[in-house]
Formats: sequence, structure tokens, C-alpha cells
Amino acid sequence: MSQQSFMEIALEEARKAYVRGEVPVGSVLVGANGNILAAEGNRVEQHSDPTAHAEILAIRAGAETLGTPRLECCDLYVTLEPCPMCAQAISFARVRRLYFGACDLKGGGVENGPRLYAQPTCHHRPAVYGGIDEQRSEQLLKAFFASRR
Amino acid sequence: MSQQSFMEIALEEARKAYVRGEVPVGSVLVGANGNILAAEGNRVEQHSDPTAHAEILAIRAGAETLGTPRLECCDLYVTLEPCPMCAQAISFARVRRLYFGACDLKGGGVENGPRLYAQPTCHHRPAVYGGIDEQRSEQLLKAFFASRR
Repeated sequence: MSQQSFMEIALEEARKAYVRGEVPVGSVLVGANGNILAAEGNRVEQHSDPTAHAEILAIRAGAETLGTPRLECCDLYVTLEPCPMCAQAISFARVRRLYFGACDLKGGGVENGPRLYAQPTCHHRPAVYGGIDEQRSEQLLKAFFASRR
Repeated sequence: MSQQSFMEIALEEARKAYVRGEVPVGSVLVGANGNILAAEGNRVEQHSDPTAHAEILAIRAGAETLGTPRLECCDLYVTLEPCPMCAQAISFARVRRLYFGACDLKGGGVENGPRLYAQPTCHHRPAVYGGIDEQRSEQLLKAFFASRR
């Protein structure tokens, strides 16, 4: 499967989150052989869990499946630039490559805000590829926040 | 109960984590009436979960108990300065006050590293009280890392 295909699955998870009334963000964790280990969407409200972002849920599910907290051979796809919490979790999990869709000027932690991977105290930095299918991700988020006004 | 008593319980959780072979950090979430909502220690290895820091587990447990991801009336005690992942989770959870023990020069995200609460993109900042019972927390961590060499 291609990067576009994985991001399409992440977008589908974001759409499902939208339908649940959650901020529409989706994420896919891909293993060493290109196998999908987890596909998750934001569930903060559903789970009453402020940490239940799509990336955290995907990392937790993948780590449980692999039986290790270290995901060196895994790549993570997410429809929105990860926040500082998720960016740090991605670093702790030693994810190999991070692919994300839209930039998050207000809440992002990779290319915006604290830019966690540029901090000298960051021990593991994934390779980062931003802007993948960003328009569709952005449109979904804009529609969600417009519907909430 | 006093701040010292809550930190003593957090230290006991850190000691239990030490015995489990985990980095010894403990955390206690306290509700509006001074009731303990959760007392947790680090379980990254036990749960094969890179996000299973003491603070994350305490926040998740407390939020589940209260049935909301927003913990505006809660205070969090932790034996070590939170990392950027936990600091951001504390902000998302809208925790009222954060009390921590030892500073973490290498991995902290509150007074060190990205100093998350000083970032203009941070939407909620808890009141922060550091250095509570820091020596006992530090000694436990030093003993742990010395035993691993």
C-alpha cells in the first residue's frame, strides 16, 4: 500500500470521529511489512479521556499487539500535525517515520508551538513528512468547527 | 490531608514502580474535596505502553471515574517534573494545580526542555508548585538508574 492509501484510511477514521462528535482526527500505525497495526480516531469525549487522541490510541493499540512499548520499525500516519502530547508519545515509542496531513498552527507541536523534535532534550526524532493530503484533512476540521459555532 | 501527605502517597507509588522494574515515578490525582481519585505509578514496561506514565494513568483513571475529560477542580501530585507528553495531558485535562517533586533537567517539559506552559500556544496552564519532597524522589530515581548500570 502507498502513503496515499494509508492516509486515506486515516482520513476515514477522522470522518468517523466527526460523526461521533469528536474533533475529526484519524491515525494509522503501520508495521515493518506495511501491515496496518492500528487505525484509530479521536475518542476524547466518548472515552472521557483527555489523552484519547487518535495517535495515542493507535500507538497504544500497536504496542499492545506487538507486546513492546518500542515501535522502532513502525510508521505513523495522522491527518493533523500532532500536538505536543502526541509528538512526545511518538518520540517515546521510537516511531520511525511520521506522516501528517494539515499543519496545526494553534495546537501543533512538531512544526509549530514548542517544536518538540527540535528541542535538544528530545532523545528520538522520527523522520517527518508533512502536508500529505492536507486539504481534505483541513476541510474536515473546518466543517467540524463551523458546525459547532 | 496535606500536600506532604499526598506526595507521600505518590512516593509510595514510585517505590512500587521501582519494585516492578519501572522508572520510579508516582502520581496522585486529588478531587475538589481533597479526595484521592487515583494513585498510579509508571507502568510502561508492564503494559507495553509508551504512554503509561504515572501522570497519564492517574488522569485517565480520574477522568473515567468523574465521567469527563475535564478535571478543572482537580490537583495532580507527581514525584518528578512531568515530561512534555504528561505536561500537555495535564493542560488538556485542565488540572487546577500541579505539585511535583524533583526537577528533570534531561526529560522535563515544565521548567525544562520545551517549557510547555510558557508557550504562547498553551491554552490552559495549571498553577505549578515544584520541589516538594524532591530529595526523596531524586534518591529513588538515582538508586534505580545506578542499579541498572
